[in-house]
Amino acid sequence: MAPKSTLDNVISLAKRRGFVFQAGEIYGGSRSAWDYGPLGAELKENIKREWWQTFVRGREDMVGLDSSIILPKAVWEASGHVATFTDPLVECTSCHRRARQDHLIEAFEEKKGRAPENGMAEIPCPNCGTKGQWTEPQQFSGLLKTFLGPVDNEEGLHYLRPETAQGIFVNFNNVVTASRKKPPFGIGQIGKAFRNEITPGNFIFRTREFEQMEIEYFTHPSEAGHWFDEWVEACWNWFTDLGIDPDHMRRYDVPEDDRAHYSAGTIDIEYRFGFQGNPWGELMGVANRTDYDLGVHNQHSNADLSYFDQQTNERYVPYVIEPSFGLTRSMMAFLVDAYTEDEAPNAKGGVDKRTVLKLDPRLAPVKAAVLPLSRNEDLSPKARDLAAELRRNWNIDFDDSGAIGRRYRRQDEIGTPFCITVDFDTLEDQAVTIRERDAMTQERVALDQVKSYLAGKLVR
Amino acid sequence: MAPKSTLDNVISLAKRRGFVFQAGEIYGGSRSAWDYGPLGAELKENIKREWWQTFVRGREDMVGLDSSIILPKAVWEASGHVATFTDPLVECTSCHRRARQDHLIEAFEEKKGRAPENGMAEIPCPNCGTKGQWTEPQQFSGLLKTFLGPVDNEEGLHYLRPETAQGIFVNFNNVVTASRKKPPFGIGQIGKAFRNEITPGNFIFRTREFEQMEIEYFTHPSEAGHWFDEWVEACWNWFTDLGIDPDHMRRYDVPEDDRAHYSAGTIDIEYRFGFQGNPWGELMGVANRTDYDLGVHNQHSNADLSYFDQQTNERYVPYVIEPSFGLTRSMMAFLVDAYTEDEAPNAKGGVDKRTVLKLDPRLAPVKAAVLPLSRNEDLSPKARDLAAELRRNWNIDFDDSGAIGRRYRRQDEIGTPFCITVDFDTLEDQAVTIRERDAMTQERVALDQVKSYLAGKLVR
Repeated sequence: MAPKSTLDNVISLAKRRGFVFQAGEIYGGSRSAWDYGPLGAELKENIKREWWQTFVRGREDMVGLDSSIILPKAVWEASGHVATFTDPLVECTSCHRRARQDHLIEAFEEKKGRAPENGMAEIPCPNCGTKGQWTEPQQFSGLLKTFLGPVDNEEGLHYLRPETAQGIFVNFNNVVTASRKKPPFGIGQIGKAFRNEITPGNFIFRTREFEQMEIEYFTHPSEAGHWFDEWVEACWNWFTDLGIDPDHMRRYDVPEDDRAHYSAGTIDIEYRFGFQGNPWGELMGVANRTDYDLGVHNQHSNADLSYFDQQTNERYVPYVIEPSFGLTRSMMAFLVDAYTEDEAPNAKGGVDKRTVLKLDPRLAPVKAAVLPLSRNEDLSPKARDLAAELRRNWNIDFDDSGAIGRRYRRQDEIGTPFCITVDFDTLEDQAVTIRERDAMTQERVALDQVKSYLAGKLVR
Repeated sequence: MAPKSTLDNVISLAKRRGFVFQAGEIYGGSRSAWDYGPLGAELKENIKREWWQTFVRGREDMVGLDSSIILPKAVWEASGHVATFTDPLVECTSCHRRARQDHLIEAFEEKKGRAPENGMAEIPCPNCGTKGQWTEPQQFSGLLKTFLGPVDNEEGLHYLRPETAQGIFVNFNNVVTASRKKPPFGIGQIGKAFRNEITPGNFIFRTREFEQMEIEYFTHPSEAGHWFDEWVEACWNWFTDLGIDPDHMRRYDVPEDDRAHYSAGTIDIEYRFGFQGNPWGELMGVANRTDYDLGVHNQHSNADLSYFDQQTNERYVPYVIEPSFGLTRSMMAFLVDAYTEDEAPNAKGGVDKRTVLKLDPRLAPVKAAVLPLSRNEDLSPKARDLAAELRRNWNIDFDDSGAIGRRYRRQDEIGTPFCITVDFDTLEDQAVTIRERDAMTQERVALDQVKSYLAGKLVR
């Protein structure tokens, strides 16, 4: 299990090496979102591509979609979000700052080790410090508004989507017609979503701007249970296949009272991030949304979102099984699970501590680093040529600065699976040394074989 | 040159085959955005991956970034967007609808073939029909607002980015430190941006929600001219390398009065879409933003965004060359340029008309279709196995419905480069027939060679 300090180490590494930066940092920063630096952008991209390959391109029963972030108010009224996507907030009557009551109570309990006496009376405002001057809780919408069009009024009111799912439901007929798919089949989508979280936090775990990878899988109502189980299994396997230790994950069967209004059953897959308090956090959830979504859009729109099965002569509203992944949460889990501290031999015949991200090579942001043994007019061009050649296929680093051991450490720390050293022998034997990240074994490989060597090691 | 009707044909094909759907269609639709169906999502993704490979992963002097859509007000005040990202609008005093004065005059001229007399007096409101009752033009912001956080006031005011560029500038120091890059080097980013366009239109060409692929390339001021020319050339070549006919593109040197406030020189690459009126539309632009951006963020933030060159002992604020691509505009150009009507032999020894999208195989949404000659208990499983095997690498269609000629037409129309027919001989010779889309030549290929055959044809 990941000890608490692993999480801190990962956050520090992620910031230092340019996986993740604070958004708007030079203007004091924002808690709402994070920016992904050169390595983070590659890692995110690799996670998305693996997900898309596994769940969309790789399956005959799936197709992809890319729907808009901004959707008219009518969609969110029909889906129930305008009415029910709310949190109960209390407001400090002294400074008018609002906060979630349950979060205030949790924070108090964590600090004091006991529940507050007399309800909220003991709890101070985290903004102004005034104690116990709270209003009764009121519902507060998690939807972000914006206004489109030439007139700044209700007519132009739109919401930023709080989930990508609705863009899938409203296109159900379009996709069925264009792709000629029949239930059971699914539609996958990756994209940004926005929620006005009252207390964003835990690094990239809970943010107001975030990214989802969602599947809406349409089935006959009688098969919904079967596909629910199938999808929980497939999602679990996706994480473990990409290297997450199954001992660091668990299934959580969400009790009815805690489920979303549309769900007849939800299983979350949680990862042991090592947060303070409850160390576990949700990576993704599979929900049985029944015929709720297509049903409400049937009622509110002019479309008929039922499906007519020509073979059985039956018309029905499909049930929906929804596997919904948090992309940046997944990225955080891959980083935490890959973080390792071990020892590497040094030049003096002893060992040094090293930090290594044991990321699956498919996810690693840099696939190989080309390292000329020294800055030299013969070695450098040879190494640069090799790097340029490999760059046609992969993201490749070139580093000619510092001692070779130090350069290995820099690559280990960002999870680069292979370091390719161009040395003075290379000028004679036209071969290079390739070092593998985890075992630190070294192999001599002919220059003209490097590409196929890497191709063999980097594919699925 | 693309005749006018090609554009109409492409739009109709795109809607019919599921490249593009109207956003929120079942609720009356939105002019602000479009949704990308199964084929459109794949095509967009392929364009993005080609762009990222060519301009980011493939170059030693480039790194990637993925910054947030929502940024604090302070960023947009510093960048000049809050003050200057505006259009002059007139308002109908009868119904209060606003419109761009220049667009109203253009529409009038297009319809009547002459300029309106007495300025706006002759021009009717497109909403209520009242003639000539317009206010004087007033500035109207193109920025979309939203409010974040627990209090719905000025403190929470944020803007959705109207360009991805600012997310790059505010991270300049972070990226330099983490990636150890030195000018000349660039940062590339792909992502959504939002502008409150008063008159969205021309299909996916001008929308309020759109997607950009942007590069900010940082150079010593003395080298800005050189890199400006280099980038115009590189961008032009990217389009032609991916199949756009250079005779359908042109460079447009934007006159000083029409340039953005930050630009000392802009060259647009335009494509001849075949719009009514002016048939040309901007695909992308390369701008010399000078030291404007890093300069204003230097002034407004607490950061020092200059660069110290240790070799020359010089401190300077880098100039920025910005190649900025419209992703969906590029997609539209690839579709229009690929659209072809020609003839294909039919079963009766004659020829039929066919529609074919001659997309570069790297861009084609479906790489190959597997077609069992007939629905048969021997052929179908064989064909399904082959499709499943190929799906591990590519997006593959399986189609067993209708005459083979009709199935070819369906694949031609969406640009699938290869159709693989599994016929009764396959059961004997363990081989299949592979038909190439454009020349319609057919080759017999052993089943166990299909994968490497396609791999050879589909790579760059």
